[in-house]
Amino acid sequence: MPRPETRTLPVVAAVFSLPVRVYYQDTDAGGVVFHATYLDFFERARTEWLRHLGFDVRSLADGDGILFIVREVRVAYVRPAQLDDMLTVTVSVQHLGRAQFTLAQQVLRGEDLLASASINLACITVETFKPARVPEPLRAALLDEEHAHNQEHA
Amino acid sequence: MPRPETRTLPVVAAVFSLPVRVYYQDTDAGGVVFHATYLDFFERARTEWLRHLGFDVRSLADGDGILFIVREVRVAYVRPAQLDDMLTVTVSVQHLGRAQFTLAQQVLRGEDLLASASINLACITVETFKPARVPEPLRAALLDEEHAHNQEHA
Amino acid sequence: MPRPETRTLPVVAAVFSLPVRVYYQDTDAGGVVFHATYLDFFERARTEWLRHLGFDVRSLADGDGILFIVREVRVAYVRPAQLDDMLTVTVSVQHLGRAQFTLAQQVLRGEDLLASASINLACITVETFKPARVPEPLRAALLDEEHAHNQEHA
Amino acid sequence: MPRPETRTLPVVAAVFSLPVRVYYQDTDAGGVVFHATYLDFFERARTEWLRHLGFDVRSLADGDGILFIVREVRVAYVRPAQLDDMLTVTVSVQHLGRAQFTLAQQVLRGEDLLASASINLACITVETFKPARVPEPLRAALLDEEHAHNQEHA
Repeated sequence: MPRPETRTLPVVAAVFSLPVRVYYQDTDAGGVVFHATYLDFFERARTEWLRHLGFDVRSLADGDGILFIVREVRVAYVRPAQLDDMLTVTVSVQHLGRAQFTLAQQVLRGEDLLASASINLACITVETFKPARVPEPLRAALLDEEHAHNQEHA
Repeated sequence: MPRPETRTLPVVAAVFSLPVRVYYQDTDAGGVVFHATYLDFFERARTEWLRHLGFDVRSLADGDGILFIVREVRVAYVRPAQLDDMLTVTVSVQHLGRAQFTLAQQVLRGEDLLASASINLACITVETFKPARVPEPLRAALLDEEHAHNQEHA
Repeated sequence: MPRPETRTLPVVAAVFSLPVRVYYQDTDAGGVVFHATYLDFFERARTEWLRHLGFDVRSLADGDGILFIVREVRVAYVRPAQLDDMLTVTVSVQHLGRAQFTLAQQVLRGEDLLASASINLACITVETFKPARVPEPLRAALLDEEHAHNQEHA
Repeated sequence: MPRPETRTLPVVAAVFSLPVRVYYQDTDAGGVVFHATYLDFFERARTEWLRHLGFDVRSLADGDGILFIVREVRVAYVRPAQLDDMLTVTVSVQHLGRAQFTLAQQVLRGEDLLASASINLACITVETFKPARVPEPLRAALLDEEHAHNQEHA
């Protein structure tokens, strides 16, 4: 049975997004944004999304003694971003584990998808670099986010 | 004789500023923002300041056929910026020539000065990379800015 | 049936590699190489590998009017690289199409695998950014490389 | 009175230099190397020069508990570097203090000077970020370098 309700919902509302402007520093001699720069854009959006959820990377490092390392990235580049573009970088939780989670991230220009990524992050201790559980309050917040993501994609 | 008038003016009001957040991508293994990254922060602020004056670097390149190249930078690093800091990056016109101009730029954290720069930019043509006059409407806007800067520092 | 012959071949000889040193600029406040920096390392190795095959990116752009854009990257981060590490970055051809090809790239420290990537590149024209065939002499060289890669992995 | 002797000396022999190749990652949409990237080139050359003198930044940090922070940079950009250029980045000691020193650095393409810099570095402790004396063996090596630099410029 179809679920017409979800179709009429503004699904994008559940997805966190950060506006990012493109500067010369982000481009290369090909005239477009250098492919590695998208990973910088993704990191900025992830960090602001964590802050939006009530967590900042510095307190997580200095207070909780943990940090998130990127274990795997998959990026599909669809259309090039250009100098002075105002981009939107999104974040949503694809999958949440005990000591790692996977985010879906996108770079959009208006409604055009420029790049789409799946990024797996592991929680490790600052001291030993060994895997650590995602702290409980953060895990609860991520669980909510995962739930929101799955509803969107149901 | 003292000039009490200028002392009571909120001088900072005349200076354009851009908020910039520090992410892991901006830091190095020393635990602070990498020194070259400040030049990125300065470029972002210059670009937004130009936009604020009514000019964007892409139209200047594609429409007017000009771009600004950095001819000289002087940066004094006073205090290190750290992960997750919210910085303020300022721009003001120090000196305006026909085909080049010099900006004073600062990086602040709250009221603390972290870095102070003097950056000389030359206007060149996109095609030949030869010096070009600063386009008249932009020059007029920069002249106003220079005036504001000099009043502050009078 | 096993193929003992291939096992005794010094297979690594067929793989191009570039030594890359880690500097502060490549690291972040976590104390290790920032994940996006690996894409820079991969690009350096690809460019030197092309040169080793007799092709340089500037002549390809200025002479042949083509450039390669990254369409997809997949990177698995296995162990972190650290300040001052001397790394080896490898390149081999995984798959060769008419207007695109996929490279396997690795970052090693000694014999330790730090990161492993699959990077798909498309050949496009500098002027229109439209797909273009890989120029024939380069295609022939890549075909040899693909052959070498497949023998290794047979 | 002229000093013909110094003119016949291969003065460049006394200056450490590192070859650096320009990749897409180093360029911007203006078609040339982004101005902040020169600071990266300078850092690479400084690090290899320290290694050439018998010191590496990782042992200095982990063993001696010190690191060098950039306190001031002055860069004059003379000619733009371009994609695929093979550059030479030089280092020489301009002035040596107890807890800081100033280096003269240049970026050359063949015999053409592209950029010239004066970079002041301070020695600080890893733990407290407070000024520290340059360790004696390094200071002795830097003193020799300063002597060589001054002879060249006498």
